[in-house]
Amino acid sequence: MFRAAQYLSDRKISVAPCISIPPSPGEVQIQVSHCGICGTDLHLFHGNMDHRVTLPQVIGHESSGTITAVGAGVADWAAGDRVTVRPLAPCGDCPTCRRGHSHVCPKLKFIGIDAPGAMQGLWTIPAHTLHRLPDALSLLDAALIEPIAVACHDVRLGRVTPGEFAVVIGGGPIGALVALVARQHGARVVVTEINPFRIRLLREMGLEVLDPRAVDVPAFVAAETGNDGADVVFEVSGSAPGAELMTKLGRVRARIVIVAVFPKPVPVDLHKMFWKEQEMIGTRVYEAVDFDEAIALLAAGEVPFRRLITNIYPLDDVQKGLLEMEQGADVMKILVDCSS
Amino acid sequence: MFRAAQYLSDRKISVAPCISIPPSPGEVQIQVSHCGICGTDLHLFHGNMDHRVTLPQVIGHESSGTITAVGAGVADWAAGDRVTVRPLAPCGDCPTCRRGHSHVCPKLKFIGIDAPGAMQGLWTIPAHTLHRLPDALSLLDAALIEPIAVACHDVRLGRVTPGEFAVVIGGGPIGALVALVARQHGARVVVTEINPFRIRLLREMGLEVLDPRAVDVPAFVAAETGNDGADVVFEVSGSAPGAELMTKLGRVRARIVIVAVFPKPVPVDLHKMFWKEQEMIGTRVYEAVDFDEAIALLAAGEVPFRRLITNIYPLDDVQKGLLEMEQGADVMKILVDCSS
Repeated sequence: MFRAAQYLSDRKISVAPCISIPPSPGEVQIQVSHCGICGTDLHLFHGNMDHRVTLPQVIGHESSGTITAVGAGVADWAAGDRVTVRPLAPCGDCPTCRRGHSHVCPKLKFIGIDAPGAMQGLWTIPAHTLHRLPDALSLLDAALIEPIAVACHDVRLGRVTPGEFAVVIGGGPIGALVALVARQHGARVVVTEINPFRIRLLREMGLEVLDPRAVDVPAFVAAETGNDGADVVFEVSGSAPGAELMTKLGRVRARIVIVAVFPKPVPVDLHKMFWKEQEMIGTRVYEAVDFDEAIALLAAGEVPFRRLITNIYPLDDVQKGLLEMEQGADVMKILVDCSS
Repeated sequence: MFRAAQYLSDRKISVAPCISIPPSPGEVQIQVSHCGICGTDLHLFHGNMDHRVTLPQVIGHESSGTITAVGAGVADWAAGDRVTVRPLAPCGDCPTCRRGHSHVCPKLKFIGIDAPGAMQGLWTIPAHTLHRLPDALSLLDAALIEPIAVACHDVRLGRVTPGEFAVVIGGGPIGALVALVARQHGARVVVTEINPFRIRLLREMGLEVLDPRAVDVPAFVAAETGNDGADVVFEVSGSAPGAELMTKLGRVRARIVIVAVFPKPVPVDLHKMFWKEQEMIGTRVYEAVDFDEAIALLAAGEVPFRRLITNIYPLDDVQKGLLEMEQGADVMKILVDCSS
């Protein structure tokens, strides 16, 4: 009855019967409700992570669901509990883990890449990855928690404080979430984006959006800050023009947060970083506190996160969704209904 | 009697009579003892700061001396006081100054570039730039305080703690000082340098030096840190190979301190910064606390700073010293005797 979306290599996804795996000690099995499609899934679809996957590989890591079974030694969870999953399995014993940064453990297994993912009806995972959902939060909305947690991590490491001026370079799903979370932290947020569909959607959510091809963004930021510059800049475009822009926009001692996955080294104006004593902060995934904040923000209902969901597809249409993302179609966040 | 070394444009320095300027309110006049020649002076000599200087321009900013006269309203200083000069004149009223970062004020006047410098017998400067010398400290040694303060600033912003593993990329005068100060803060320090004269001198000071053309530096650092990586990396070479090396050497959450003046944007592996959540910190000049630390370190006599002084030249030989630095001659820190 349950099915699974599997990556077969070379831009192909197939849907096959889901293999139910009884939970081992320390594991739980959940019935997955919804799973978002992430840019990382597109990267994987393109074959860029073939060295990490085991074919056929069930993908997906932005999930929500309900526990169906618990393994031995799992005391805090029971069948029927509604959950989301922080899909990280660190080694727990390397210098990075011992320093408390296990979310970026060099031996980290990312569940959904290095281990089977969430786009299946029944999914067996370690219990330590679970976060409980508040009763008021729907399983549909809860599939947004993982990407919101990315944004909470970025905003936290960027140390955004009320009244600050923040620029988000790149208004895709993660850029949009960073902008919404930074605004919720009290910053004035300006997003730069070139895609007309995204610009329109971001503006409908009340965000201030500039198209850098039409507006001189450094001049705009200078004018709006009394020639001071932005307090914090989030680079979410992964592009050379974005990397060029980031050091220009930041003020003296600005924080520049590297959120994007840059496919290759790009020129960075280290002289500007030196001259303005700017700080650049690499940020990746999230920690437990970021999931806690994401859940609280989503449950509070003050931020229009749900507006980012442009499509909800059945499991059969995962490949269609990936191709739409690849083509830059009019989509923002696509969710997959894993019970379908 | 007193003379002054003046930059005339186009790689020319002349020595002319010093014009004694009586101190205005808030100023003092000092009889300069010694002044170091800095890489910035070479940059200026090459014409790269012609937009900032007023010709003929007395250069120099690494100074020591004795007060000869004080202007009206200068209460804390008297003729005969032995001093060094923190050559920064910030505006005091911009957002950067109000935030407490006046040392990198966008309107900062750097004395020795934007205003007449120290390579003259009598020098008139604002009293707020002065730091008092301990009795035991010679005026010769005290000319090292300014570059040591640069290193103290870099090490402080790099948050070096005892037991850490630090790499300094580039072992010129500033790289050497950063290495010595970081070692004094309790770090194990490895310096990378390619110039044989510098390598020898650094080793004579007990520093661990690698030639990156002969040694696989990332493999060395990995082996020495149990595959963890360096806790902190100082980029002091200003070179593209240095910028490539810095993200490789740092561990997860490493601090990468940008000390060098990069003449143009260079490729930076922002993916490594993201993947390892590294932090990059631009650092420039110094603050009062850094001068205080530099004076204390120098006076304590535990660090072989004086070994860096390879030449002491009379004022007539400033141009000769600049040409030696330009040619990569066997020199490290050249001091000018401004009383000569």
